[in-house]
Parts: sequence; C-alpha cells; structure tokens
Amino acid sequence: MKLWDKGFSTDEKIDMFTVGNDRQLDLIIAKYDVMGSIAHAKMLHKMQILQDREITVIEAALNSILNNIKDGNFVIEDTFEDVHSKVEFMLTEMLGDTGKKIHTARSRNDQVLVDLHLYFKDEITEIKTLVKSFFDLLLSKAEEHKNVLMPGYTHLQVAMPSSFGLWFSAYAESLIDDIYFLNAAYKIADQNPLGSGAGYGSSFDIDRQMTTELLGFKTLKYNVVAAQMSRGKTEKALASALSAVAGTLSKFAMDICLYMSQNFNFVSFPDELTTGSSIMPHKKNPDVFELIRGKCNALQALPYELTLISNNLPSGYQRDLQLLKEAILPAIQTLKSCLEMMTFSIKNIRVNTEILEDSKYNYLFTVEEVNKLVQDGVAFRDAYKIVGATVEKGEFKPDKNVNHTHLGSIGNLCLEQIKEKMDKVL
Amino acid sequence: MKLWDKGFSTDEKIDMFTVGNDRQLDLIIAKYDVMGSIAHAKMLHKMQILQDREITVIEAALNSILNNIKDGNFVIEDTFEDVHSKVEFMLTEMLGDTGKKIHTARSRNDQVLVDLHLYFKDEITEIKTLVKSFFDLLLSKAEEHKNVLMPGYTHLQVAMPSSFGLWFSAYAESLIDDIYFLNAAYKIADQNPLGSGAGYGSSFDIDRQMTTELLGFKTLKYNVVAAQMSRGKTEKALASALSAVAGTLSKFAMDICLYMSQNFNFVSFPDELTTGSSIMPHKKNPDVFELIRGKCNALQALPYELTLISNNLPSGYQRDLQLLKEAILPAIQTLKSCLEMMTFSIKNIRVNTEILEDSKYNYLFTVEEVNKLVQDGVAFRDAYKIVGATVEKGEFKPDKNVNHTHLGSIGNLCLEQIKEKMDKVL
Amino acid sequence: MKLWDKGFSTDEKIDMFTVGNDRQLDLIIAKYDVMGSIAHAKMLHKMQILQDREITVIEAALNSILNNIKDGNFVIEDTFEDVHSKVEFMLTEMLGDTGKKIHTARSRNDQVLVDLHLYFKDEITEIKTLVKSFFDLLLSKAEEHKNVLMPGYTHLQVAMPSSFGLWFSAYAESLIDDIYFLNAAYKIADQNPLGSGAGYGSSFDIDRQMTTELLGFKTLKYNVVAAQMSRGKTEKALASALSAVAGTLSKFAMDICLYMSQNFNFVSFPDELTTGSSIMPHKKNPDVFELIRGKCNALQALPYELTLISNNLPSGYQRDLQLLKEAILPAIQTLKSCLEMMTFSIKNIRVNTEILEDSKYNYLFTVEEVNKLVQDGVAFRDAYKIVGATVEKGEFKPDKNVNHTHLGSIGNLCLEQIKEKMDKVL
Amino acid sequence: MKLWDKGFSTDEKIDMFTVGNDRQLDLIIAKYDVMGSIAHAKMLHKMQILQDREITVIEAALNSILNNIKDGNFVIEDTFEDVHSKVEFMLTEMLGDTGKKIHTARSRNDQVLVDLHLYFKDEITEIKTLVKSFFDLLLSKAEEHKNVLMPGYTHLQVAMPSSFGLWFSAYAESLIDDIYFLNAAYKIADQNPLGSGAGYGSSFDIDRQMTTELLGFKTLKYNVVAAQMSRGKTEKALASALSAVAGTLSKFAMDICLYMSQNFNFVSFPDELTTGSSIMPHKKNPDVFELIRGKCNALQALPYELTLISNNLPSGYQRDLQLLKEAILPAIQTLKSCLEMMTFSIKNIRVNTEILEDSKYNYLFTVEEVNKLVQDGVAFRDAYKIVGATVEKGEFKPDKNVNHTHLGSIGNLCLEQIKEKMDKVL
Repeated sequence: MKLWDKGFSTDEKIDMFTVGNDRQLDLIIAKYDVMGSIAHAKMLHKMQILQDREITVIEAALNSILNNIKDGNFVIEDTFEDVHSKVEFMLTEMLGDTGKKIHTARSRNDQVLVDLHLYFKDEITEIKTLVKSFFDLLLSKAEEHKNVLMPGYTHLQVAMPSSFGLWFSAYAESLIDDIYFLNAAYKIADQNPLGSGAGYGSSFDIDRQMTTELLGFKTLKYNVVAAQMSRGKTEKALASALSAVAGTLSKFAMDICLYMSQNFNFVSFPDELTTGSSIMPHKKNPDVFELIRGKCNALQALPYELTLISNNLPSGYQRDLQLLKEAILPAIQTLKSCLEMMTFSIKNIRVNTEILEDSKYNYLFTVEEVNKLVQDGVAFRDAYKIVGATVEKGEFKPDKNVNHTHLGSIGNLCLEQIKEKMDKVL
Repeated sequence: MKLWDKGFSTDEKIDMFTVGNDRQLDLIIAKYDVMGSIAHAKMLHKMQILQDREITVIEAALNSILNNIKDGNFVIEDTFEDVHSKVEFMLTEMLGDTGKKIHTARSRNDQVLVDLHLYFKDEITEIKTLVKSFFDLLLSKAEEHKNVLMPGYTHLQVAMPSSFGLWFSAYAESLIDDIYFLNAAYKIADQNPLGSGAGYGSSFDIDRQMTTELLGFKTLKYNVVAAQMSRGKTEKALASALSAVAGTLSKFAMDICLYMSQNFNFVSFPDELTTGSSIMPHKKNPDVFELIRGKCNALQALPYELTLISNNLPSGYQRDLQLLKEAILPAIQTLKSCLEMMTFSIKNIRVNTEILEDSKYNYLFTVEEVNKLVQDGVAFRDAYKIVGATVEKGEFKPDKNVNHTHLGSIGNLCLEQIKEKMDKVL
Repeated sequence: MKLWDKGFSTDEKIDMFTVGNDRQLDLIIAKYDVMGSIAHAKMLHKMQILQDREITVIEAALNSILNNIKDGNFVIEDTFEDVHSKVEFMLTEMLGDTGKKIHTARSRNDQVLVDLHLYFKDEITEIKTLVKSFFDLLLSKAEEHKNVLMPGYTHLQVAMPSSFGLWFSAYAESLIDDIYFLNAAYKIADQNPLGSGAGYGSSFDIDRQMTTELLGFKTLKYNVVAAQMSRGKTEKALASALSAVAGTLSKFAMDICLYMSQNFNFVSFPDELTTGSSIMPHKKNPDVFELIRGKCNALQALPYELTLISNNLPSGYQRDLQLLKEAILPAIQTLKSCLEMMTFSIKNIRVNTEILEDSKYNYLFTVEEVNKLVQDGVAFRDAYKIVGATVEKGEFKPDKNVNHTHLGSIGNLCLEQIKEKMDKVL
Repeated sequence: MKLWDKGFSTDEKIDMFTVGNDRQLDLIIAKYDVMGSIAHAKMLHKMQILQDREITVIEAALNSILNNIKDGNFVIEDTFEDVHSKVEFMLTEMLGDTGKKIHTARSRNDQVLVDLHLYFKDEITEIKTLVKSFFDLLLSKAEEHKNVLMPGYTHLQVAMPSSFGLWFSAYAESLIDDIYFLNAAYKIADQNPLGSGAGYGSSFDIDRQMTTELLGFKTLKYNVVAAQMSRGKTEKALASALSAVAGTLSKFAMDICLYMSQNFNFVSFPDELTTGSSIMPHKKNPDVFELIRGKCNALQALPYELTLISNNLPSGYQRDLQLLKEAILPAIQTLKSCLEMMTFSIKNIRVNTEILEDSKYNYLFTVEEVNKLVQDGVAFRDAYKIVGATVEKGEFKPDKNVNHTHLGSIGNLCLEQIKEKMDKVL
C-alpha cells in the first residue's frame, strides 16, 4: 500500500530502489512520529477539526502504538513505504474514517521534519552526557597522574617537559569547544517545523504555537519555506558537531596508538583491551583505539556527504533529501559507541612513571636552562645561544626539576576552573 | 634573518618552500601581533621581568609600529620569515637589548595563536554585521512583495502557492541558524592562548589572567596543551560557520539563477547587474549570482581541507599547521565579498507580479481544493481522490484566492517574530 | 573463537565494537577468499610444504566450501571474527592438523588484500558492462531523436539550438572518460599482493609468480611493503572511478529532473516511473531520478571518507584500514543499482517534439542570424551589433532551420565515431 | 573593454568580483591561447573564411604575441577581462577588421577549454617526469641501503624485520599506481574541444579534425555538448590524479617525520634541511617534510572543492566553472614543488645502520622463529603457541639473521622488475 497509489502497478525494482532501507531507519524515529501525531491531533481537536470523541479514540490508539514501539513490538512490513504510512494504516484499521483525519493539515514532509528534530534533540542530549562522562574521567586521570612527567613534542621532536596531568586535561578542555558546537546544533533543531506541510503551509487555520509547546520546542521555525529548508541544514549542523567531537577523539586515539608503541612506551592497557596477531605471538595491538580513530575519521566525512546531497538543489522539497537520514542516523550511533568505548578503555589506562629516566629525553630541559639564565639577567637571545652551544658540544646536563606555576601549566592544572567552564556550557 | 639561524646557510629553495606566502598573510594579522605584544610586555612589567623604563620604551615602540600598520606603511621584507621576526627586529633596532626581552616567556607558537584568535573574533563580528544587513534587506523585500504569489515547487514540480514574501523571508530566517554557528566559533576563539609558549607553558611565573583581560578575551584556554591544540580546531570551527553561511547564500543564488531563466522569469535585474555573451546578443546572464554560488560552494570544501591538514597528527605543534592560515584567511575575505555582493544585488531585484497568469500554474491550487472539501466535512483521503479525478480528466479549475492564516504562512509571515529571534542571537 | 586468543577472556562489548559488521561484508568476498586459499595451497604444495595427499584433501575441502558459498549456504557465525577464521576452522574440522597448514607463509593481511583485489576486478568489469549498456542505450536514443530540437542553455539562459540527439550522445561520450578511470582502478587492482604476509614478507621460499598466474593477475605487487600500502590506495582509486561514473549519472539526473518540471516540459515518463504526492493529486514526481542524483552525489563523498581513514597513517598495517571495506562495498552496490535503474528508466523516456513552438525560445536563433551575416561578409563584431539591435528593439524574427554540419554538431552527431572510441577503451 | 559591452556602464565592484584574479591565472595559459588561435586561424583559412593575405598577417601577428609571452613581456591590463579579449584587442589594433575575424566560429567557452586541455597535457607530462626522477632516486636509495635492516611495524607495534631497501622501493612501486591515474587524466585531456563554441557548435562548416591534428590532440571530443561538459570533468580527473601522487608523498613524509623523532632515530638530514626552534636550541625540525605532508594533504581536498563547484549544475556552461581554474592552477604548481623538494631532500637522507642493536626490537624476530619451527615440521598454530610462551616468559632470544628470498622480500627486492613496470606505463 502506498499513500500516493493512483491505481497504477509500480515496478518492484523501482520500489526497492526508492524505498531502500527507510523502513529500518524509520523504526528509530517511530516514537517521535507518534509523539508528533499526538500533538498534531490535539491541535486539530482544539481547531475543531477533530471532534471530542474523535480525539479521545485517536489519542488512545496512538498511545497504544507508542507502547508497541517502546516494547519493541512495532514493525514496518514491506507493504508499507515508511513509518508514516504504517501508522496511518494502523489508525484507519482501528478507527475507520476517523483515523484518516489525522493527516489533515499536514504532509509527510513536515511529519518527517518534526520526527527528526525531536530525535536529534534527544540524541544531542545523550551525546553531551557521554562527552561529560569522558570529560570527568579525563579530569580524574589528570588529577591522579598530575605529578608524572612525560616528554612534550613539537614537530614530533623531543621538546619540553609535559605531564600526564597536562595531557589528560588538555583533551578535557578541548571537549568543551565541541560542546559549543553541539549546543549550536541543538538550537537549530529546537525549532518546531510542524505545520509547514509540504513546505508551503496550508489553508487550515492551525495553531502552530500549540504544537510547539506540546512537543517541548523552544520556538518554532516560523516561515514554512524555511522550515522545509531546515531539512539538510539541520543535518549538516549536527554532522559538524559530531565531527567536532570525533576530531577530538581521533586525535586522542592517535596519541594513544603512538604512545603504546614500543618506541614510546608511555601507556599500556590490560590484555583484555588489546588484541593479538595471527602470526606474531608477542603483539599487543591497540585495535580499540585504531578503530576509534578510524571510525571518528570516517565520521568527519559526513558533513561533506550531506553537503554533496543537498548542495545546489533549488528550494523546495526534493526526494534526494530522504538520503540524509541514511547517512546521519548510523553516524550518531557510531559516535556514541566511540565515546562509550573510549571512556571504558581509558578507565583502565596505565601510565609509565619512569619515562624520563631515558637519556634521550634530557634535551627536554634546555628551555628550562635558557629561562634560568634569563631570570639571572641574561638577555633571552644570548641565553639561547649559550645553551645551544652546550647542546652542540654534547655537554648539556639537565636539571629535571620542573617548577611551572602559571595558570594551566604542569604545576597548576586549573582542573577546577576547567570543570566550571564545562558546567557553564552544558 | 631567521630567529633560529644557527650559523648554517640554508638553501634558498627550501626557504621559498617553507616560508611560502606567509609574509603576505602576516600583514593581515600584523595589527593583532603588536596588540598581543603590548599586552605581553605589560604583563612582563608587572612580573618585574621588564623594568619601568623598559616597558615605557617598548610600549612606545610597539605603538609606533601599530601606527605604521594602520597607515599601511608596514612591510615584511624577504629577509624576514614572518611578522614575529620582523617586529622583534624593529624593536631590537630601536631599543637594543631591551627589545630582545619581549620574547621572554613566549614562543612564536602562542604568538601566532593569540594573533589568530584576536583576528578571528574581529572577522566573525564583521561577518555577523554583514549577515544582519542582508537579513534586514530580505525582511524588507518580504514585506514589500508579501502579496505577490509565486509557484511553490516540490521535486521541481509545480506544487502549491507560495509568495515572494515567503521566499525572501525564508532565507532571512535560515540565516539565523547560521548565526548560531558563528556564535559557537566566536566562543571557541574567545579564549586566550597566550602564555602557552611552544605548547607546554614555561617556568616563568607569568600572569595569564592579566593578558586575558588586557586583550579582551572572555576567558583563557587554561591548559597549555589544549591552547596549542586549538590550532586547527579553532580554524575548523570557523570554517564550519563560514560554510553554514555560504550554504545559505549558495542556495539562494541557485534559486535566483533558476528564476532568471526564461523558463521561469520570476525575477530580473538591471542591466548593470547582468553580463552579456560574446556571441549571443540577447543574453542577460546572472554571472554575479553564479559566482556567488560557485564561490560559496568552493568555500564549503574548506572544513575538509583543514581537516585533512590537521587530521591524524599527534598532539603538539607541527609545521603543517602553518598551512591552515593560507587556507582560511582568503576564505574569510571571499565570504565577506559574497555577502556584500549579494546584498548589493538583491537591493535591485525586480519581481514579476504576473507569474500566476500562466495556466501551467493552475495545478498549484489542487491542495486548496482538497482542503476546502475537507473543511466541508469530506475525509481527507476521499477529497484527495475527488480532486485527483478532476485533474486526470483535465477538468480542474483553480480558485486563485489564497487564504493562509497560520503562523509563518503566506498570509501571516511573522516578520516581526523572525526579527526578534535574530536580535536575540546577535 | 579468535585466531589470536591467548587465553584471556575478552569483553563482549569490545568484540562487538571491533568486529562490527565484518562478518556480513565478508560473505561478499568469501568466494575470493577461498579462491585465494586454493592458489596458496597449490603453491605450498609445489614448494613441498604441503604433501601430495595434503593438497588433494585441502583442495577438495576448499572446493566444497566454494560450492557452499555459491549455493548461498555459507554462514559466518558470531563465534568467528571473519571469513578467514571461519574457513580455517572448517578446514581444521574436516582435515585436522593438515587444515592448519594452509596458514603457512601468509597472514590475514595479505589474505584480505588478495580477496579485495580479486573482488574489485570482478566488480569493475561488471560496472563497465553496465556503463556500456547505458552508453548503447544513449546512442540509440540519440539516433532515434536526432532531429528533435531542444533549447541549449548557457547560464541557464536560453542560448542556442541544441537537439535531443546532441543531449543523449553527449552523456554517452562523457561516459568514455569515466571508463579511463575505471581502467586505471582496474590496473591498480590487477597486481597480486599475496605473499606479502603481514606486510614484510616471510622467510618461506614461496613462489609468488605462481599464485599470480593461478589467480589471473596481470602482474604482482612485488615489494611486500608496497603490497600492504595498496590497502587504502586501491580503494581510493576505485572510489575515484566510481565517483567519476556517479558524477556523470548525477548530472544527467539533474537535467532530467529539470526537464520534467512543468517549466520545461521537455521529457516525460510513464506513470510507473513517477511517484505521486500524499497531498497533491496532480503531481508526477521524478523520484527515481532524484534518488539516482542523491545517491550518486553521496557516493562522491566516498574518496574523501577513504582518504580521511587512511591519511597520515605511517606505513604498515593498522586496524583503521578494516573500515575501508565497510565504506566501499556498499558504494559499489549502490552505483550498480543506479546504473541499472537509470538504464531501465531511460528506455521509457518520452521526448517532447514541439518544444520550440514556444516563442520564448526564438532567441535561440540569434547566433544563427549573426553567423549568416558573417557568411555574407559582415565582420563578426559588426554582425553581433546588428542582431543585438533587433533584439533590443523586440524585432528579432528567427529562422528555425538549423544547418550544422561540422563534426559533433546537431547535423553530424558522429555516433559511429563515439562508439568506436568507446570500443577501443573497453 | 569588454567583449559583451552593450553600452552600459558596469559597476566597478561587480567587475572586481566577477573578474577576480583571472588575469593573473590567464598569463599561465596565454601561450596555449595563442597556439589555439593559430590553429583556428589556419582552419578558417582552409575553410576560405580567412583569405590568403589575412591568414598571413594574422599568423605573423599571433606569432609575435607568442614571442612576447615567451619573453615574459605579455601583460593583461585591468582594462581587459581576460587573455582572450586582450589577444583579440592586440590583433584588432595591429590588423583592423581582419583581426576581428579570428573570433568567427568560436566562443570564449571553447577557447578556454582548448587552452586548458593543452595546458593540462603539458603539466601532466612534466609531473610524470618529476615522479620518474623521484622514483629513480628511491630505487637507487633502496639499492644503496638494501642490507640495512629496520623494524617493520603493524599497528605501530614492533612487528617483523624490514629494511631500508624495502622501505624506499615500496614508495617507488607505489608511485607506479599514481602514474595510472595521471595517464587516465592525460587521456581525458587529450581530446580536442575546439569548435564546440559556446557548447552547441555552430553553423560554420569548420574542420575540427584539422585543428585536432594541428594542436597535437590524439582525438577530438566529438559531441559539442560533451566538449562543454568536459569543463569540470577534466579538472576533477586531473585533481584525482594529483591527489593520488600527493597521497603517496604525504605518507612518505609522515614516515620520515616519525623516523626523525628521537623515539625512532632511523633517519637524519644535514642541518641545511632542518630548521631550529626560537626557544629550544637542540631542535632539528623536519619542517620541509611537515610542509610536504601538509601541502599534499591540503591538495587532497581539491577534488572535493571542484566537485562542490560543479555538482548539481544542469548541463550547459555556467559561470561557476570559471572558478575551477582558480582552484586547480595553483595546486598543480604546489604538487610540482613538493615533488622537487622531496627529491632534493631525499638525496641527502642519512640512514641509521645500527637501529636493531636496541633490544626493544628483539621481538621483530618472533615470526622468524615460528617459521623455523614450521620448516622443521611443527604445525603453524603449534609453533605460534611455543614461541608465544617464550615471549610471555621473557625468554625469547632472537636470531637476527634474516633470510628472505621470495619475490619482493628483503633479500630479493626486484628493483629491476619494478623499474620495468614503471617504464611500461610512462
């Protein structure tokens, strides 16, 4: 059954091509579709398009469908194109002509829009919670290992002293920037598109303010053409925010893969968190982190995929936009699993407390030496030349006491301030 | 002269390859570099690293350089690698050993970071102003043409009645979403990285809170490793925001190019705003809009370029990051010129008030007819079939009176509410 | 069961995260995995690592597995990590210790490489066949409609006369360029990586030339490190070639969506190939073409996704590379279905033979008029001005007889030469 | 002066926006523009559109312009829009009305197309020469250091023995794959578009076969619409090929940056090829390689930028396509400079011959040990367990003699075969 069936038989292959895996994806948003329908029905009742007895039975029917969905008993058979037609079919089966009335003053275009906006809001909230858990873990790891020095690199060259405290909390503070982006995406999603119909509104005198409040949107996307244009735009915004988080995770995973190498040996993990090799019995591979890195890198292609789908399309709904769903829904799940897996793994990280014993890290302390001379009154450029000369002659001897005190330095990590900054933006 | 010159002659070709067009780009950020130096010097003075007489002459010298920059008299000769070495050279020339002291407790890494953060903040503010001008113009055009109907398309098929009021203000409301992104980018830039040195802080007991206030940053990026990691991350955030605006402009430009085609003939422009053809004397081509579209589309590749440069680099400064500047600085200018050109052009747009006279647009009104039947008590699906049958038989006669009243519809554009929404986020 | 099980229990969640949907994807390449194993086993036999009786039973066992795969009876249960471990398990079950020997002198790294290279070769061949079918159809449509004129546009402005013959065969000739890319990807895949082991070869004196011939590779990737590096590189090459074809299909689909609009009305399709609207009974939407366009556009993000996954990874296998499979395998299927659907649909295209009756297309003929004056001896620039003046005054009268004769023009489509060009590169 | 000037004054700002830096870029292709004009003029003469005396003076004039260009004396003043209008102006100034005739039967659209096709062919040839030089150097370095072992990594974990011979020649053989792509791009460019006019041919009976031969094209793009569509398509093909080379260079640069780190210390370079730090006197940074890596990574965004510009544009010239030139011309120069700089630098590479003295690399030899047991008759899985047990107990003792003999292995690099493979495709 298709809503637009005009009595023509349609070739099966075309159906497969056009519907794709929409039914499966629609299961994810089914809950929101019914919630949107309930709000729409209540509004139609207020507008006297639905009678008292009609709204009663419609609401009851929709709630029973909602329970089905929550219980995992809801299915979209191959005879239905999508969740919208399945729900309408169920309503009509239960309620006859009354069920048909739910489609008054709306279109599948604004139905799917409202479904996605509600869904995105929930997912962003969940992702923020996962980011916060990871953030808290990083801060606690920073506190735990704040006195363990490690080499700081520039150009991948041994450069200056760093610490595990600095390293862990650097990624924590970086995550705050990603929250800004998640918040922007949330605000873009938090505008009710319901009532925009197929993209040009309708002649029914509907109350969009009412559905906005019923569905918990902060505001509505007033202009109906703008509401339709938010398809693609909202997805791109969310994809950029997902990419921001993914970029941070990927960089951290790269650090870990490097630091687990025998050439660094800065961190290690219990055997349960590494994998072996089918031909090299000594290997303990960082597969989890390589996969986090790889998945988070792949995910950063998402905004471009969405842009390619929607770019240079004139305004007004076009079927291409259906494909946005296929691209972004799995990406959301991927990012969440990466966040969970990262948090799970980092809980078990072991840091090497003896790194700086190795003499190749002696040069970490040249800047310290230059600074001491400066504090004794030597001009910086001259101090630089003096220390440089001892390095050239191989006579440089490091003093490994690091005494950094300024805000955000090894000796003053400002974990509390960083935590406050995060709390303000969550 | 190079800061890191260790007495070796360096091959000229390498120099060209490594310095690139950095000198030219550095002219753009020179102002901010000196501002950063003034704040740094004041802080060094407070820390008693600079004496009273030293800060006096240093500040005077830096202010005179700042005036040079403002007057357009500042140049970076080929003998200097970048703005940082040129300014240091000037200071040393003017002040001798005192000039050298400015480099105490900082590195070129945090210098360029602070320059870029200050620069990005100013540019984002300017872009928001340009967006607001365009937004205001769109709203005034929407008000001016609110009663002129035009076809609304879905699938590029004639669908339902729309209006120039809807069309213009749809793009206005869409721009608000882009502001969310610009604001996120601004917040990310609005954190002082100065004092992070080469990425690992220093043993000088500097006062980072003081430079944060002197430079007008809302907060500081506490963690020095995080400050260094913001290189790339800040640029990507800004690039995503630029892309958001660009995407809106590009879509609007696509609409205009289509609507200027003889096949639509919805809008036109004075001859000054179109170009001709070297072999077709009747052509009036929308070159300006095609170029806005093309430039805004190209610009949407920017986040991907920045991601490719910085992705999978372990933490810590790496020279690759210098290339971010080359990519993003011209893009900022391009977006600004597209916004200016779009605003300039749309001021002169002429809309065709007679579009719907053409009978091919009669079908725009089928939904209206369906809705009327529904309002007369016919179930939606039945009404749909009745009107569908008249269309099939070629007997459909439109009533072209459109009476849309709900929020955001043709008859109720909510321009005031849209304006308020924008004002809240600016 | 895992090949690398070292007696540790591994957390289930990690297993899910690390294995992902590899089992499902591996079903697609299972056939090639067994083919690779047969060749490897034969070679081990020649090297006397496998005895005569061993190769006999191993080959028989592998052939029975191959038949299982062909019959659709092969499954990879959740207890197996991938196709490689499942096949090894089956062999060991059937043959005991003899089955274990198959893994001598190879690694999963070169196993999956050889599987993918064989698989890609087959898929490229199949795609070329589909491209050729579409190409032939376009040429036959061009021949069929070679005398039907249509407007040619530049800047989306009515410009000069074109024809359906030109339009159809333009896309045919464009497809030849895409074949160049498919051929390049084929050549890159057509190099045997088997024997490279985990990426550094082995101490077994294996005969790589023999497996190269047995598996039908044109040459081998000699260097074992290069063989390993072809992971990612081969996928990117193929993705670029897929993107090239996708770009051509997408552009053609865009033309069709535009030309189906009531504002053009150049082409139409039987009802079976269009879809309706849930609220607009007159609509006949080009969903198939919108979805071809959208899918082909999304597909053009694939090279970037693959680049993001593999970029900036140092040489040597890394687990991230497993994710390449997830990205490219579905894309291959998508492109094939787009090619099939496009060919299926275009067979049924109807062209409007009366387009140029509409007076808005009169200006198509201004260049013709200019050219006639030139042929009568007027200088081009002067002729241009004369015709331009009649256009300005609204006095231009077209002569709609088009007499283009040069190679590749309306009157001389060179379909035979284009066909020959294609035949040469297939 | 503008070709399409219709007597209207055009706003200066629009001019700046629409012309952009086209004049500067056009200097690069000026030579090809004049070559195209000479061929076109000769053909017009054969067609008797130009008289004997006309072709004589036109050819002389064009040759003198060509000499100007070669001598660096050719300029495009701000009063000209592009190279085409400048050359036409010069011709008209020198020859009066005769000069105007050169524009008969062509358009700027096919002029710029032929310019770019000729230019791309030359650049591809030059890039192939640079790739070949680098390839030869890599092979000679492989031969030179074929006996120096180095660790082979998988998952960035110490895995199995590799060698500098393997490493250098791996990149050499990888470059051959990139040549396949350059060849595909060359074939796509090697089709004459001249005569396609504005994209729809003309009524002049021109001889396109003649200009094809005069300009040295292998064939022509017959279909005039296809010729116009090659704008964008050709650039994308070339960009994909440039990206392929860039990807190989970037990966090699990543290896080098890692191997120069004190944590690896596998390779080093003379001081002239490294740079220092403004605050760390011991640093010898791999800036050249970081910049090669960064530039080559940025370059891999190019195909995406070109796709964004041209995607979803209906067929027929559109002004957006002008922007392709801005994007691809600098990228070609960048790749050439990266190839030159890489070759220049690698000539001076020093390899560390003592790497494997370090005990952390002992585990490289576990697979060797497993294989020896297998060759002594132990089943692979059992041998794996035996060696694994000695590793677990810390009792593993490596035998550092590596005896790899198969094709492409440490002991049998097949440099000659790799060279032959390259020679076949060049």
